[in-house]
Amino acid sequence: MNEIKVFAPATVANVVCGFDIMGFALQEPCDVMTIKKIKEKGISIINADNYNLPTAPEKNVCGGALLAMLKEVEIDFGFEIISEKKIKPGSGIGSSAASAAAVVVGANELLGRPFSKMDLVRFATYGEEIASGARHADNIAPCIFGGVTIIRSNHPLDIIPITCPDMFVTIVHPQIEVKTADARAMLKKEVLLTDAVTQWGNVAGLVAGFLQKDYDLIGRSLCDVIIEPIRSVLIPSFAEIKSKSMQAGALGGGISGSGPSVFMLSKDKPTALRVEQSICEVYDKLDLEYNTYVTTISHEGVRIQP
Amino acid sequence: MNEIKVFAPATVANVVCGFDIMGFALQEPCDVMTIKKIKEKGISIINADNYNLPTAPEKNVCGGALLAMLKEVEIDFGFEIISEKKIKPGSGIGSSAASAAAVVVGANELLGRPFSKMDLVRFATYGEEIASGARHADNIAPCIFGGVTIIRSNHPLDIIPITCPDMFVTIVHPQIEVKTADARAMLKKEVLLTDAVTQWGNVAGLVAGFLQKDYDLIGRSLCDVIIEPIRSVLIPSFAEIKSKSMQAGALGGGISGSGPSVFMLSKDKPTALRVEQSICEVYDKLDLEYNTYVTTISHEGVRIQP
Repeated sequence: MNEIKVFAPATVANVVCGFDIMGFALQEPCDVMTIKKIKEKGISIINADNYNLPTAPEKNVCGGALLAMLKEVEIDFGFEIISEKKIKPGSGIGSSAASAAAVVVGANELLGRPFSKMDLVRFATYGEEIASGARHADNIAPCIFGGVTIIRSNHPLDIIPITCPDMFVTIVHPQIEVKTADARAMLKKEVLLTDAVTQWGNVAGLVAGFLQKDYDLIGRSLCDVIIEPIRSVLIPSFAEIKSKSMQAGALGGGISGSGPSVFMLSKDKPTALRVEQSICEVYDKLDLEYNTYVTTISHEGVRIQP
Repeated sequence: MNEIKVFAPATVANVVCGFDIMGFALQEPCDVMTIKKIKEKGISIINADNYNLPTAPEKNVCGGALLAMLKEVEIDFGFEIISEKKIKPGSGIGSSAASAAAVVVGANELLGRPFSKMDLVRFATYGEEIASGARHADNIAPCIFGGVTIIRSNHPLDIIPITCPDMFVTIVHPQIEVKTADARAMLKKEVLLTDAVTQWGNVAGLVAGFLQKDYDLIGRSLCDVIIEPIRSVLIPSFAEIKSKSMQAGALGGGISGSGPSVFMLSKDKPTALRVEQSICEVYDKLDLEYNTYVTTISHEGVRIQP
């Protein structure tokens, strides 16, 4: 096999109370990457979209991830990557993670799978470092493993895939820019112990809710007393779209990653569509461009074209 | 049925990273309470042990718990409680919780079970209020439900029983006094966000480890970067008994509740006995009275004599 096409899904990191330690994969949208073995050594990146991302491997998230992998394997050929991004960079649903994950998964297939999924996450975090300055795994891990993943620790990397019930996800992407670094700088360095205890009670409830497939418990646990009260000022009409989504039947939701996208979980598709409608009604009143998607949690993660 | 005998087990609250939100039940030791219907209205408490606890119902944890229950049911008789405490008060393994739990479970049986387990936890927290000034449920809930319980929230009460694999527990009780109020006053009101994130990563890992019956993950997640570093100074040679226990093969462990007892979890009984031996070797060198137990996690909780 000399060529492979990989679909890497968008992901939601943080998951309300699970700041920096949790993420899940979406069914759609997906970045599409074609990876080819080529005679010339090195990495050649071709953009097949309009985002005009850097093509020098050391400045490109795919390139950075693949360079990290190639340090641990000896080969006498190179790779060409044709990058067709469908997840808009900066949307807060793991755009950089999807590209990095796609390329390491694809290259691993072409090499005969010398690396474990855990290795692939590790390589892909070097792509994240290029995108945001930090080798975090909370988008990469769910992108590669699928479903919900806990990132118990980034250094050393400890990823725990957990099962969850089928759920529908409504995403809204208001077309504003939120820089991850700015969203991080807003946070207070210290938090009240009482708030931290409330938060880890909700984290415990959320993990139990996913594993026990208890929708009500998932809903009750989707509560963030630490990050959301601070960051939600970045998102237009956040309180209103959340409250309208809950009225429409959402289990809960919040900021995806560091924004600006917002996600809402629902038990079934009609509810997820009602949630979308409620959000549209709020945003249509503002002078704001936005996109919405209704999709599901992907239990699979990165997919290879058969 | 006019009389019932109830065995209510000791419990471990906090469970290292799960400060204020988690607890589990032990197989032994148990408080033994005999509850009888009597003609005279009101509550009569008789001590059948040497702890000389108050017998006025409103000053006694059993009495306080039962009074809370009796506010929600109309009866034309009273109760006599014969209290045989085997869990030493102040040992940090849920002594007051066991007494309160035993009495409400027993009285509920004698009344024909009008109340749910969740109600019984709620009543028993009034006993905890008499013992420590706070209506916390992190010992009561595992005592009544058995196994591991998450207390996602105390107000309103949200208890989530979760399954866990079979585990052995080594308990050491150094005979010193640690007042819960003092142990709480030591804690800082604010904690670093980075530490809080580490903690909730471990909470997520611990819950997943219990539910997925993953002993290694349970062990990796039994790490507390917030409470233990402060409170462990209260426990004689804490660092040494913990490190010797780990060398002996324990999965992990820490302070039980607010101390002074310390617990260590092990996968099998020979390991738990080696852990006990290691702790004894440390404490035998000190001029310190102490007790040790080796027991298991009780998946059952409060038991009624058949």
